[in-house]
Amino acid sequence: MLNETQQQRDERFMREALKEAELAAREDEVPIGAVVVSNGKIIARSHNLTERLCDVTAHAEMQAITAAADYLGGKYLTGCTIYVTVEPCPMCAGALGWSQIARIVYGASDKKRGYSTLLSGNKTPLHPKTEVVVGVLEEECRQLMQSFFRAKR
Amino acid sequence: MLNETQQQRDERFMREALKEAELAAREDEVPIGAVVVSNGKIIARSHNLTERLCDVTAHAEMQAITAAADYLGGKYLTGCTIYVTVEPCPMCAGALGWSQIARIVYGASDKKRGYSTLLSGNKTPLHPKTEVVVGVLEEECRQLMQSFFRAKR
Repeated sequence: MLNETQQQRDERFMREALKEAELAAREDEVPIGAVVVSNGKIIARSHNLTERLCDVTAHAEMQAITAAADYLGGKYLTGCTIYVTVEPCPMCAGALGWSQIARIVYGASDKKRGYSTLLSGNKTPLHPKTEVVVGVLEEECRQLMQSFFRAKR
Repeated sequence: MLNETQQQRDERFMREALKEAELAAREDEVPIGAVVVSNGKIIARSHNLTERLCDVTAHAEMQAITAAADYLGGKYLTGCTIYVTVEPCPMCAGALGWSQIARIVYGASDKKRGYSTLLSGNKTPLHPKTEVVVGVLEEECRQLMQSFFRAKR
């Protein structure tokens, strides 16, 4: 992986987030997964658990932030990247803002519930230094969501 | 309490949120407290624990939402009111949106970090049916914050 480009690395970690999303789907949860990477290493992995935990706050990102801070022994994730299969909602964007995370990489956009639509016209709750990368493995991430909701109908 | 007005009831519950905020101050946490009320009864109480838990997501409101859903055995708080001493941030406003809570009553506005400033534009992440009441025991709520930050300097 020495000659890996940034894009290849982003795709490699997004595949790990996708594995988490698949676990969520198998548990009949909205299939969204996330991993947090620090110094090239995954330090937290999680998937949406709102149904199992009966808790609207149990989004993949929220759990990943908590787990990563726990691993690092500090509440700020300034050196970290979060990979998440779907665009964060305003709650998760707010939490990522507080965490001061360095990068947010997401796969599929969420035109209905994503922070960039729901908060359009507003300032974002993200930290000004946070870099956002959109559309990594977008098709796979969206497919997973679409087949989940199709099966629900 | 039979002849209690809505305002008197709101103040009574905000005093309980203030007690939580005072607990936070004593633990050297930013002094914000919250209670959730369902059918005239407090079903969850919490205060900010971001330092102790080393977790940026451990705001009073987030914990209160989780605890109230746990008490009710369902993730939606459609019949509930949250009383919180300070205006929610975008993360907490987003979480309250997901919870579909009926009423949000807060004391002091937060011009820097509150959702209504940070997200000043047209949309909020709150549920369209949620009623927001501002400024209940505002002075007490703000005093507690001010003396906490004054002591920090």
